[in-house]
Amino acid sequence: SRFEYVKQFETDDRCLPNCWIVVRIDGKGFHRFSDQHNFLKPNDDRSLHLMNCAAKQVMTEFKDIVLAYGQSDEYSFVFKINTSTYNRRSSKLMTNICSLFASTFVFNWQKYFHDVKLKYPPAFDGRVVLYPSNQNLLDYLSWRQADCHINNMYNTVFWALVQQGKLTPQAAQERLKGTLAADKNEILFQDYAINYNDLPEFYRKGTTLIREKKEEQITHKIPQQDGTFKEKAELKIKSELVELHTDIIGSSFWNNHPEILTPKLKR
Amino acid sequence: SRFEYVKQFETDDRCLPNCWIVVRIDGKGFHRFSDQHNFLKPNDDRSLHLMNCAAKQVMTEFKDIVLAYGQSDEYSFVFKINTSTYNRRSSKLMTNICSLFASTFVFNWQKYFHDVKLKYPPAFDGRVVLYPSNQNLLDYLSWRQADCHINNMYNTVFWALVQQGKLTPQAAQERLKGTLAADKNEILFQDYAINYNDLPEFYRKGTTLIREKKEEQITHKIPQQDGTFKEKAELKIKSELVELHTDIIGSSFWNNHPEILTPKLKR
Amino acid sequence: SRFEYVKQFETDDRCLPNCWIVVRIDGKGFHRFSDQHNFLKPNDDRSLHLMNCAAKQVMTEFKDIVLAYGQSDEYSFVFKINTSTYNRRSSKLMTNICSLFASTFVFNWQKYFHDVKLKYPPAFDGRVVLYPSNQNLLDYLSWRQADCHINNMYNTVFWALVQQGKLTPQAAQERLKGTLAADKNEILFQDYAINYNDLPEFYRKGTTLIREKKEEQITHKIPQQDGTFKEKAELKIKSELVELHTDIIGSSFWNNHPEILTPKLKR
Amino acid sequence: SRFEYVKQFETDDRCLPNCWIVVRIDGKGFHRFSDQHNFLKPNDDRSLHLMNCAAKQVMTEFKDIVLAYGQSDEYSFVFKINTSTYNRRSSKLMTNICSLFASTFVFNWQKYFHDVKLKYPPAFDGRVVLYPSNQNLLDYLSWRQADCHINNMYNTVFWALVQQGKLTPQAAQERLKGTLAADKNEILFQDYAINYNDLPEFYRKGTTLIREKKEEQITHKIPQQDGTFKEKAELKIKSELVELHTDIIGSSFWNNHPEILTPKLKR
Ligand SMILES: Nc1nc2c(ncn2[C@H]2C[C@H](O)[C@@H](COP(=O)(O)OP(=O)(O)OP(=O)(O)O)O2)c(=O)[nH]1
Ligand SMILES: Nc1nc2c(ncn2[C@H]2C[C@H](O)[C@@H](COP(=O)(O)OP(=O)(O)OP(=O)(O)O)O2)c(=O)[nH]1
Ligand SMILES: Nc1nc2c(ncn2[C@H]2C[C@H](O)[C@@H](COP(=O)(O)OP(=O)(O)OP(=O)(O)O)O2)c(=O)[nH]1
Ligand SMILES: Nc1nc2c(ncn2[C@H]2C[C@H](O)[C@@H](COP(=O)(O)OP(=O)(O)OP(=O)(O)O)O2)c(=O)[nH]1
Ligand SMILES: O=P(O)(O)OP(=O)(O)OP(=O)(O)O
Ligand SMILES: O=P(O)(O)OP(=O)(O)OP(=O)(O)O
Ligand SMILES: O=P(O)(O)OP(=O)(O)OP(=O)(O)O
Ligand SMILES: O=P(O)(O)OP(=O)(O)OP(=O)(O)O
Ligand SMILES: [Mg+2]
Ligand SMILES: [Mg+2]
Ligand SMILES: [Mg+2]
Ligand SMILES: [Mg+2]
Ligand SMILES: [Mg+2]
Ligand SMILES: [Mg+2]
Ligand SMILES: [Mg+2]
Ligand SMILES: [Mg+2]
Ligand SMILES: [Mg+2]
Ligand SMILES: [Mg+2]
Ligand SMILES: [Mg+2]
Ligand SMILES: [Mg+2]
Repeated sequence: SRFEYVKQFETDDRCLPNCWIVVRIDGKGFHRFSDQHNFLKPNDDRSLHLMNCAAKQVMTEFKDIVLAYGQSDEYSFVFKINTSTYNRRSSKLMTNICSLFASTFVFNWQKYFHDVKLKYPPAFDGRVVLYPSNQNLLDYLSWRQADCHINNMYNTVFWALVQQGKLTPQAAQERLKGTLAADKNEILFQDYAINYNDLPEFYRKGTTLIREKKEEQITHKIPQQDGTFKEKAELKIKSELVELHTDIIGSSFWNNHPEILTPKLKR
Repeated sequence: SRFEYVKQFETDDRCLPNCWIVVRIDGKGFHRFSDQHNFLKPNDDRSLHLMNCAAKQVMTEFKDIVLAYGQSDEYSFVFKINTSTYNRRSSKLMTNICSLFASTFVFNWQKYFHDVKLKYPPAFDGRVVLYPSNQNLLDYLSWRQADCHINNMYNTVFWALVQQGKLTPQAAQERLKGTLAADKNEILFQDYAINYNDLPEFYRKGTTLIREKKEEQITHKIPQQDGTFKEKAELKIKSELVELHTDIIGSSFWNNHPEILTPKLKR
Repeated sequence: SRFEYVKQFETDDRCLPNCWIVVRIDGKGFHRFSDQHNFLKPNDDRSLHLMNCAAKQVMTEFKDIVLAYGQSDEYSFVFKINTSTYNRRSSKLMTNICSLFASTFVFNWQKYFHDVKLKYPPAFDGRVVLYPSNQNLLDYLSWRQADCHINNMYNTVFWALVQQGKLTPQAAQERLKGTLAADKNEILFQDYAINYNDLPEFYRKGTTLIREKKEEQITHKIPQQDGTFKEKAELKIKSELVELHTDIIGSSFWNNHPEILTPKLKR
Repeated sequence: SRFEYVKQFETDDRCLPNCWIVVRIDGKGFHRFSDQHNFLKPNDDRSLHLMNCAAKQVMTEFKDIVLAYGQSDEYSFVFKINTSTYNRRSSKLMTNICSLFASTFVFNWQKYFHDVKLKYPPAFDGRVVLYPSNQNLLDYLSWRQADCHINNMYNTVFWALVQQGKLTPQAAQERLKGTLAADKNEILFQDYAINYNDLPEFYRKGTTLIREKKEEQITHKIPQQDGTFKEKAELKIKSELVELHTDIIGSSFWNNHPEILTPKLKR
């Protein structure tokens, strides 16, 4: 039709080849959302598990995602370096992931929050960031995990001061102004007998989702001419999503999972 | 931290000023989704109303959207030309809208589909397109409404041939190959006594959402010194979402709603 | 060859349709360049005419440029709104114009600077800017002409103070700190009997290049059967570059040359 | 002023960090340009040397260019991977290089072409391409050098057929249709006693410009108290442009010049 020319105003937004494509999503206004739904402080297992559930759905749909990392109200999805999913079109990647994550979050709300009713449907923002080298990618993930650590330590002390120490939020904030990690550890240990390092890794490290190849023995029943069946075993390699709560800043995680970075065959 | 440099890899994606920003979203794989949930053919009111409901939620959240147009599994949202929502950042706009739409779709599913269970959470893709002139914007909307018309006429005849005419889908497709609008009208009229133009505008024109200013009389009770109350009337102008199923290709819609294009004060 | 894949790393940089494409170039380090070649202060006719000469060459090569505006060491070229020159590819447009301007500048140096030798080849930076509306384009051009005016007035007083007033450059700068246009006019008039508005428009307004349609009478000699010739007149419309030094901020220039903006047939 | 808002229509075009930035320029319409100036066929030393001269000027101005490769009417400039020249702004990089190259080409024309007059100032197009990995960069350069080889072999046979074999250009073209490298070698050797591999590397390999650190012994004369001078030697490391005509596809060039790729300290 004579209107079709408007299609030409769309732009080509394909990502530069041979770069790691990261899609990061983040809950919109989750300060308010967590308030309205009475999230436990500093960490609410229900919310964190629901986030992980939505992330797994995303990885199930997008087979080229090799790793996902989540904490708080955010998740980062890493595509294999030479993925051609959606022809590397940036808008397609971020909107599909972002909307699937959001719809899965609502879809599975009740499974995690039981009789707490979802008051309104949440939104998530999303963005695509490109990282040219492995080191850049590792530093990106370290940045997010370091952010998890810093916020979690702050929130842990803050809510100890408020909930157990009976300080007002303002007083707690004042108390923590200018304190370093060591100081916060000290407050937790001295005043509340909490050893920060003993807190669950789930809170301190966030969640890393990867795929692991598992061998699986499958038995086929082969019908014989005489009407009986013969069993035939077969080894099948299946890929399975695995949820970890471990350090991904140091090298040991990457040494243990070399296939995440290396199948890239980066030219 | 030493990882923060990775933030610099993010790009500035602000939209060119003084252009109409259109965000179009479209259901991912709704061919399968409509099959799996036994959508009525050619049009399923439940789905269309649910789409409209999600679009209204988007317009409620994003006050700078001046018009939305939806049909089939897609919706287009038009921001006022000089909006500064999210600083006109393209990724922010499309991902927030897309994810809010998707999560609202799931959130309200049952309200429209009653005991039909949602089998899996749907995704929507999204994109931003810029239109520099009013005419380009009108042509864009005409393009979408013409698409609605063409598909709806095709689907109407197709399903008449299949459901009433007992043709196989292949035979129906074959029968329609090369036919023009007039031919399709003829088949409908002669063989199935359907007058295409009498079908609901809801199907033929899609849905247009706009805001309408409504005057509302509010009565305040003003306490008097003698303990009594005096009533004081006030006229308040409120903006309300209005759902239309009308032609937006011709000029009469635009003449009746000049404020959609004109408050733009386009320099 | 196996290397050709690298071509895919090039990006599509076509400009949004239906926008005015402006290419602005600006001399690199012309502070030093004008010093080294002893440019007259505040304005050197040789340099300004050479700039205009280079700009005309650009307009001769690129037929879709409808107007060019130059001042100091810069020039802006405005393409007709729906040009398809180089498929609207941004890099192609700016680099071709920028390099042609630079090479023409050197090519014609001697014609304007006579026995002043060109000491080194100058560079020019370039950029593409898009303007969606006529008003944006006019404001862009006004911005450049206002810049011309402000700088020229400043430079005129500054060099009067230094050259005639025998102030040091520092003292002159100090003297002018915080002065308004009126103050500068006053200094010029009172102390140096210069009426700013009497200075050449060439300096105060910069140069505007446009094309003007001219009718031209051409006479063909048509050979006759008897060996004689018959003269036949023909009216041909030719387009000619015209150099103006006039105000382009007010509306009268645009009223006098409506074809610059209107042949756009902007949909 | 009230016009300054137009500055906001300019876009941020900074290149993705940690990628090799390549600026490739190419003569506009050099088919015609070489004709008009009677370039020798298939290779004109004057033109090739003038191109190299312009490229050296570019490298002298832009210290972060680590390598340049030229052939025919094109040149590629490779910036060190983490350069912050012009804040990595794409437009600035390509236009400055392109215009400097063009103006230098004209500036030095006579030095190479002596009494052949430059008929008109040439333009060069330019573009920026990003390469994320070393291998991508090497493949890019290989692509250009393979192109040099293929074109040069074709042109060499073609002009042998035309100039010595007295074929018309059309006949020569016809004769070469579908021939492989081996066939062309054979024609050259059998019919014209030319051993392709004996032709100058200057033509077959193009020109590679790199910087080489040279130690230089400088002698200072230090004035003594008694009025005499004592000589003091100092070793200074200077970087010098070196012009090579060698293979850069194989690994030996890169092994001999590891500092081109490695000082990158790519994280
Ligand atoms: N109580 C509680 N709050 C949480 C939990 N996870 C996330 N949140 C809240 C704490 C923060 O206020 C918020 C995440 O911070 P953001 O920087 O993303 O801010 P917010 O989402 O409010 O704004 P945004 O739209 O992202 O700019 O979510 C949780 O497990 N428990
Ligand atoms: N039966 C039925 N189907 C509908 C209705 N609305 C939309 N659909 C289906 C018909 C089409 O197969 C599909 C929309 O077409 P699309 O071109 O968007 O294709 P689809 O979503 O399958 O793929 P995509 O991921 O968008 O490329 O949705 C409805 O009201 N009733
Ligand atoms: N004396 C004199 N100087 C001029 C004339 N036209 C331009 N210039 C000089 C004055 C300014 O220092 C310079 C233009 O200012 P710019 O802001 O473009 O600075 P410049 O080119 O030095 O640096 P850039 O590389 O553009 O950032 O050129 C002239 O006619 N006479
Ligand atoms: N005779 C001769 N011609 C040369 C020499 N170096 C380059 N050329 C000519 C041969 C080609 O026609 C032309 C380069 O080919 P291009 O593909 O760049 O085409 P051209 O510049 O004509 O068009 P363009 O504006 O780049 O699309 O330059 C030389 O040394 N001798
Ligand atoms: O999805 P289609 O086929 O209706 O057309 P499109 O949306 O323009 O294509 P794409 O989704 O690939 O941008
Ligand atoms: O949202 P913030 O403040 O954590 O930081 P950001 O996500 O980098 O900022 P933005 O959401 O505005 O891109
Ligand atoms: O100019 P060509 O044909 O050698 O190939 P290209 O440079 O890749 O094409 P373009 O100049 O159009 O980008
Ligand atoms: O160069 P300036 O300072 O006149 O201003 P600009 O041209 O807008 O700045 P830049 O050259 O850095 O884009
Ligand atoms: Mg954020
Ligand atoms: Mg958030
Ligand atoms: Mg967050
Ligand atoms: Mg689509
Ligand atoms: Mg769809
Ligand atoms: Mg659709
Ligand atoms: Mg500048
Ligand atoms: Mg300058
Ligand atoms: Mg300037
Ligand atoms: Mg080319
Ligand atoms: Mg060329
Ligand atoms: Mg070439």
